[in-house]
Amino acid sequence: MSLIASWIDTANSSETAFPLNNLPYGVFSVGGAARCGVAIGDLILDVSGLEEAGILQPGPRPGVFSAPSWNGFMRLGPTVWSGFRAGLTEFLREGCARRAEVEPYLFPMAEARLHMPFRIAEYTDFYASRQHATNVGTMFRGPENALPPNWLHIPIAYNGRASSVVVSGTEIRRPWGQVKAPDKPLPRFRPSGRFDIELEIGAIVGQPSTGPVSVTRADGMIFGYVLLNDWSARDIQAWEYQPLGPFQAKATATSISPWIVTKAALEPFRIPSPERERDLLPYLHEPGPMLYDISLTVSIQPELAALPTVIARTNYREIYYSFPQQLAHHTTAGAPMNIGDLLGSGTISGPAKSERGSLLELGWGGKEPLRLDTGESRSFIEDGDTLTLSGTAEGVGHRIGFGECVGKVIPALEPDQLPY
Amino acid sequence: MSLIASWIDTANSSETAFPLNNLPYGVFSVGGAARCGVAIGDLILDVSGLEEAGILQPGPRPGVFSAPSWNGFMRLGPTVWSGFRAGLTEFLREGCARRAEVEPYLFPMAEARLHMPFRIAEYTDFYASRQHATNVGTMFRGPENALPPNWLHIPIAYNGRASSVVVSGTEIRRPWGQVKAPDKPLPRFRPSGRFDIELEIGAIVGQPSTGPVSVTRADGMIFGYVLLNDWSARDIQAWEYQPLGPFQAKATATSISPWIVTKAALEPFRIPSPERERDLLPYLHEPGPMLYDISLTVSIQPELAALPTVIARTNYREIYYSFPQQLAHHTTAGAPMNIGDLLGSGTISGPAKSERGSLLELGWGGKEPLRLDTGESRSFIEDGDTLTLSGTAEGVGHRIGFGECVGKVIPALEPDQLPY
Repeated sequence: MSLIASWIDTANSSETAFPLNNLPYGVFSVGGAARCGVAIGDLILDVSGLEEAGILQPGPRPGVFSAPSWNGFMRLGPTVWSGFRAGLTEFLREGCARRAEVEPYLFPMAEARLHMPFRIAEYTDFYASRQHATNVGTMFRGPENALPPNWLHIPIAYNGRASSVVVSGTEIRRPWGQVKAPDKPLPRFRPSGRFDIELEIGAIVGQPSTGPVSVTRADGMIFGYVLLNDWSARDIQAWEYQPLGPFQAKATATSISPWIVTKAALEPFRIPSPERERDLLPYLHEPGPMLYDISLTVSIQPELAALPTVIARTNYREIYYSFPQQLAHHTTAGAPMNIGDLLGSGTISGPAKSERGSLLELGWGGKEPLRLDTGESRSFIEDGDTLTLSGTAEGVGHRIGFGECVGKVIPALEPDQLPY
Repeated sequence: MSLIASWIDTANSSETAFPLNNLPYGVFSVGGAARCGVAIGDLILDVSGLEEAGILQPGPRPGVFSAPSWNGFMRLGPTVWSGFRAGLTEFLREGCARRAEVEPYLFPMAEARLHMPFRIAEYTDFYASRQHATNVGTMFRGPENALPPNWLHIPIAYNGRASSVVVSGTEIRRPWGQVKAPDKPLPRFRPSGRFDIELEIGAIVGQPSTGPVSVTRADGMIFGYVLLNDWSARDIQAWEYQPLGPFQAKATATSISPWIVTKAALEPFRIPSPERERDLLPYLHEPGPMLYDISLTVSIQPELAALPTVIARTNYREIYYSFPQQLAHHTTAGAPMNIGDLLGSGTISGPAKSERGSLLELGWGGKEPLRLDTGESRSFIEDGDTLTLSGTAEGVGHRIGFGECVGKVIPALEPDQLPY
């Protein structure tokens, strides 16, 4: 698919993340109240203003864009989602006769503050990159037991902590926690010394369900996608995760990028899941391609460094179970899914060393520290480091960008700031 | 503490769960809208009606009891909680001069429908009974590895699925899921054949936090307690739980009793936690007794049986980590806690065989089936069985009852009802 030209010049650049083909949804403020906006080039279109002015009629619920979340719009369902997107495309297309009506509702993105784009219901994190599971399994359990026996049959996941999900730009405080050194008999309570990222894509559920759903229906329930960084304290995780899985290791924060890239925008980039080593059970069969070709990078910038160092480049295609498969599996036992549920794809790692989506894997548990462009080395995150994820689907003469998911790690609380 | 006599006769019986000393909070409806009520003897006091009539002034937010949840009241904080409880006690005490004003707002409990008493935020389930962890560990990993090495140091937990929490009385549909027989090479998708209960107490968080909190502060954040049954599909669990913990095995439902028993009502029943085999880290130290002496029973009633069979009797004192310790641990890594968060104590099992809080333990994984009073035997739940938890703190001449937490298991969906 080629670029859809817009009367907004910056949306026609081959470098912008936000051409007219994209139209991702966010929540922004410029001084006043946070409200719904759509990214276009280097601007944000205030759709709440457009609606209040009567220029845009998205559906049966007036005022839906004045809220600081897209949940109300999600509730209106896929037919309204499509109609709204089609309308926006016409308003912003080159030659649109109503340009003068729309222009007053455009704000420079550089002057806006971006907020959480939706009100989160619950958060589930999957473990669906085979290379990531193999790498971590090799480090934690040895190469013979790297991939658990269930992994090729079932999309493994755990429930995360929704209250810890934050928008890109939020500073991330290094956590305290219980850790135990392998050579010590007793655990200690201290700041995590092995604080890490996980490079993931997040999917936002935009329609509810009350019982088991098929893979096809699950695909229809998804509203859009974000970049997701599941911050992970590896030393806390190693000590706590048996037998019920990670808990406080994953409770510090999960950052998401501020713009929801819609399923419609990614439609041209669908690709099939990897070849299956074992046949999947019928409830997991996909009717067609359900992954996307999305290039991803991770960079790290120490506090005093002038520039970031890119430490990983990979692609969402490395995922073994697509979001519709994950969501269908999620509903098998009967739990309702709700608008605003967030699913993490699992850390995305490719086969090459440079394609690994966590520092744990990139530095092989501290045994092979990374060398940064500054000359410094890193096994895990140091205080003051800024970690940035970015993601792009490459079209013809344009790209569908996710923008960035950024987090700076700040020092742990001092002992005298703790309440103990 | 002895009985506080009420002008409501049924509240003075030594058999009632709801004497004036208790005053648990629920949400009820009698035909019309669901609203807040307080149990007293065999009646429900409609506190929304009392407030609308100007008889009761709980605090700065009028209308707080007209909502179908106690979340708004929780937000008002512990000082309001205490004042409201003291006011209610005076209104209902024997000899109260305002009896005639209050009487019109009493409804027979037998005619009311009970709803979820609060709007749930997130749900976390702990694993804090040593005997339960030892029993399950023995069955899953052998007696040498029964208790994980971290267990005596850290309150182990996993995040559960909040959308699956339902009120007592809700029918529970047997789930489908992926299971693998030990002697078969491949998993199958089928209805769970090892569907089970977990007898627990639930704690409801009534005040928020944004960083680490002490055990003392955590105690102050708790609003009250319910009985909790964490329905568990053991065959799904055994196949899925490595390496990230239980997921769909726990996603069918968690039932809670409809009445929130307040911390104030349980105050006279505080008891210390069990003796510590290992010293706990300072952040887990308790300033005083933080468990409660609560007797618990589990009964099962097959579809055609005239009466239930009590299959377990145990006590909340079997828990090793109190709720304040669990909540303090929950906050160590920085995740905010919110009003409406629900914590499960973990399955409560005592040392005797008759004190085990799950069928998995009572029937030792199917090897020692239970004999019911009907002559039937049970290893796990059969379709049509009704499972009932009950809980009581025994005072002098009265008891603080939780009421019951009931769930009837209905058959799994037929294959042609599945969407695959």
